[in-house]
Amino acid sequence: MKAVFHHSNDDPELHARVVGNIANLLDDETIDIEAVALVANSGGLELLKATSQQREQIMDLIDRGVTAKQCSNTIEGTDVSEDDLIEGVELVSSGVGELTRLQNEGYAYINP
Amino acid sequence: MKAVFHHSNDDPELHARVVGNIANLLDDETIDIEAVALVANSGGLELLKATSQQREQIMDLIDRGVTAKQCSNTIEGTDVSEDDLIEGVELVSSGVGELTRLQNEGYAYINP
Amino acid sequence: MKAVFHHSNDDPELHARVVGNIANLLDDETIDIEAVALVANSGGLELLKATSQQREQIMDLIDRGVTAKQCSNTIEGTDVSEDDLIEGVELVSSGVGELTRLQNEGYAYINP
Repeated sequence: MKAVFHHSNDDPELHARVVGNIANLLDDETIDIEAVALVANSGGLELLKATSQQREQIMDLIDRGVTAKQCSNTIEGTDVSEDDLIEGVELVSSGVGELTRLQNEGYAYINP
Repeated sequence: MKAVFHHSNDDPELHARVVGNIANLLDDETIDIEAVALVANSGGLELLKATSQQREQIMDLIDRGVTAKQCSNTIEGTDVSEDDLIEGVELVSSGVGELTRLQNEGYAYINP
Repeated sequence: MKAVFHHSNDDPELHARVVGNIANLLDDETIDIEAVALVANSGGLELLKATSQQREQIMDLIDRGVTAKQCSNTIEGTDVSEDDLIEGVELVSSGVGELTRLQNEGYAYINP
């Protein structure tokens, strides 16, 4: 099974929750997980910046096979560029487009 | 592909985000979008009232083919009627029923 | 059709909304509902504790066929045990695993 986590909030407590939720899914031995994605847009950008409090945990999740995707629209017109993101994070054309595409491919949607 | 946006919050910042998210999906040239719906319930009602700060943008989205749907339960027992909504907004029996129906028809779910 | 409600917030207003949303779906005569589940994790735990303000309503929903599921990870390491939950609530290995499994079985996802 596959799941995509959607994160759009800049509340620091929610950053920790998203990271914890994804780890919980990977750790759940009762379910066979093929693929997990994280899509950030709006305030969710803070979680995927290199300055993120959860940088180590995000890198661990990427090491475990999670694909982390940042919406390009969110950083357009800001001084944030791809270089400011955690290494391994991919830019996608739009977060909402990616969420639509992944669900169309059979990913379950989870908004922590 | 098809997507339904669910909006249930009366935070003005979120009204703007929902509208921006839907426009971003329509503008994303990397994805072939057949249909987009917006379902409002609870505090999301404020976005679809004729007095909404985002009235012009909602009308633009409807012009671009988005179907905007307001939950009847939310306005039941209030002094808001269909006439108080932005022109073109449809009333649905329940927001949650509509969200279930649309996902059953293959719409991806997005809660901005 | 089938739907799963995801509740992860400890805002008392949202507890009431979740319960109301589920009742609205069951009451919607325009849609044929086979199964409804509620999955609580993070702050959503408060809704499913025996001390919950919505205890009676949750018991009514369970009587009407709703399955209420509490994430085990949320209570791990706390002094809350299964005995502290409303009677009839089931513990699941992880809330996010259950949300993935149910969507894979065709449940629509709703985050009130």
